[in-house]
Amino acid sequence: MTESDAKTEGTTPGPSVLVVGTGAIGAFYGGKLAQAGAAVSVMCRSDYDVVRAHGITVESTLGDFHLKPVAVVRHAREVPEPPQIILVATKVIPEMVDVSALIAEAVGPETAILLIQNGIAIEDPVVGAFPSNEIISGLAFICVTRTAFGRVVHQDFGRLTVGCYPEGTSSRTQALARLFSSVGVPCEESANIVTDRWRKLVWNAAFNPISVLGGGLNTREILESAGALKLVRRIMAEVCLLAEADGHPLPSGTVEANIEGTRAMKPYKTSMLLDFEARRPMEVEAILGNAMRAARRLGVPVEHLEVLYVLLRLADVKNRLG
Amino acid sequence: MTESDAKTEGTTPGPSVLVVGTGAIGAFYGGKLAQAGAAVSVMCRSDYDVVRAHGITVESTLGDFHLKPVAVVRHAREVPEPPQIILVATKVIPEMVDVSALIAEAVGPETAILLIQNGIAIEDPVVGAFPSNEIISGLAFICVTRTAFGRVVHQDFGRLTVGCYPEGTSSRTQALARLFSSVGVPCEESANIVTDRWRKLVWNAAFNPISVLGGGLNTREILESAGALKLVRRIMAEVCLLAEADGHPLPSGTVEANIEGTRAMKPYKTSMLLDFEARRPMEVEAILGNAMRAARRLGVPVEHLEVLYVLLRLADVKNRLG
Repeated sequence: MTESDAKTEGTTPGPSVLVVGTGAIGAFYGGKLAQAGAAVSVMCRSDYDVVRAHGITVESTLGDFHLKPVAVVRHAREVPEPPQIILVATKVIPEMVDVSALIAEAVGPETAILLIQNGIAIEDPVVGAFPSNEIISGLAFICVTRTAFGRVVHQDFGRLTVGCYPEGTSSRTQALARLFSSVGVPCEESANIVTDRWRKLVWNAAFNPISVLGGGLNTREILESAGALKLVRRIMAEVCLLAEADGHPLPSGTVEANIEGTRAMKPYKTSMLLDFEARRPMEVEAILGNAMRAARRLGVPVEHLEVLYVLLRLADVKNRLG
Repeated sequence: MTESDAKTEGTTPGPSVLVVGTGAIGAFYGGKLAQAGAAVSVMCRSDYDVVRAHGITVESTLGDFHLKPVAVVRHAREVPEPPQIILVATKVIPEMVDVSALIAEAVGPETAILLIQNGIAIEDPVVGAFPSNEIISGLAFICVTRTAFGRVVHQDFGRLTVGCYPEGTSSRTQALARLFSSVGVPCEESANIVTDRWRKLVWNAAFNPISVLGGGLNTREILESAGALKLVRRIMAEVCLLAEADGHPLPSGTVEANIEGTRAMKPYKTSMLLDFEARRPMEVEAILGNAMRAARRLGVPVEHLEVLYVLLRLADVKNRLG
């Protein structure tokens, strides 16, 4: 594969974008936007020096590429003028600095905020902080890992779904879909992104916790255990009930389609398991906590989900703090 | 504390006892029976040479003592004549050699088989193999650990409950209660030992799995988590329902009494957690598997128990085999 420098210098036809969080997701999608002609700046902290000096190199199955940002900043106040799009790709964990506070000084009246993050209801705090800005919610289906500061490896997939939050599409989502598609990243607009988030949660809420609590299992090991598979089905059924109660009914074959889809995949370690093994915080609240809160609000019994939530929260703390 | 040799030589007033399994439980209670005047032989495998040469030393809060068995054998066929009592104190795990096969050649028509083991319904295979022998079921409330071959440390408690299986008491249970009590081990007879096993399972089924699945928690850490405590209560309630459906109703305050009792204890690592940390097999089947099978037989829904069972079984395999 050849490495081609993303064109970010000089006048660009694309929008100005500020990427917040230069982990794997931010680097990959930010880099792709730069490749598509966007003027991409990045905001980062721990990896600031490396990214400022060298940019970010992405080894990708789509062809390696390099992101040389227009600007690298530590704080939103260093951004000279509000970007057209702020791409937020940070992990959704309580210990994370509040995203809204992090970006506030860079948000102008015309800035759209694109959240490419896991979980359910993760948009609400941002909507609360910026009620008159366009909030675009994005779901990434991708295997991508940061292997070092300034270095990301994209192993598989890459598809993106974007939609206005809480619903609809806009000229901005259309432009994003075109930009990403122009550089080989399948990107579809969704008029019902919350439904899509529930659909993705069906998989995440089942496979992620079981992979960790079962002692470190990949997807195949889960599928091969009759007991685990039964538990997967029950969790998925609970999430389907939740989605329906939330006004986002999923197709009747959703559970089996998820299981068959997983069977067709190579054995795969979930993101929670990777985080757990590296003793990093897991996205317990975004994936399970917010689902539990929705269940409480909607009065839906989700007993299996709750057991996993309780155990995983305990295991997360113990894993990090001893 | 002084170390006193258990008197097992010469003519003894006590019964002849064969202890099967010289782990912590077998060594402690076998040693105490020897101290009380029983003629105690032991059957062991991995620690045969050490025990044969040096016997077993027990450091105990009740005073240190030493068990010098009348005989140390590897196989039941080496036992010259059937003992009056066979004390089985092996761990109840599927990988364990079948206890009945292990002891068959030492069982005479008058031999009583005393099972001091964890779990529920653990007597059934033994009853099936020796239908005309007296089966005595015993529950130990004790903190005791084998620290090396031939070396056991008794940290706390020690109380024993014994009863005929499935119910009643006998001259043998009475004799055992007297023997143990004579050497400082509180031992009460129970006419409803199955009820007592359900009662003990209330605690075990809740605290053991959560201690492991929660990432390695002691009893205090479990009690201090609102989520974990709620889960503890639900599991305990399910076991109470099971016990009742099995014809062994427990007192209405059982759940809260268990929680209060645990609060009053020093923070404590469960036996499953100790096994898990040492990468030894956990007693998943004896404690949860048999409860699940009872639930299926009795038609009692035990959803929380089932989640823990599935996850713990997976974690157990992964923990030992990678």
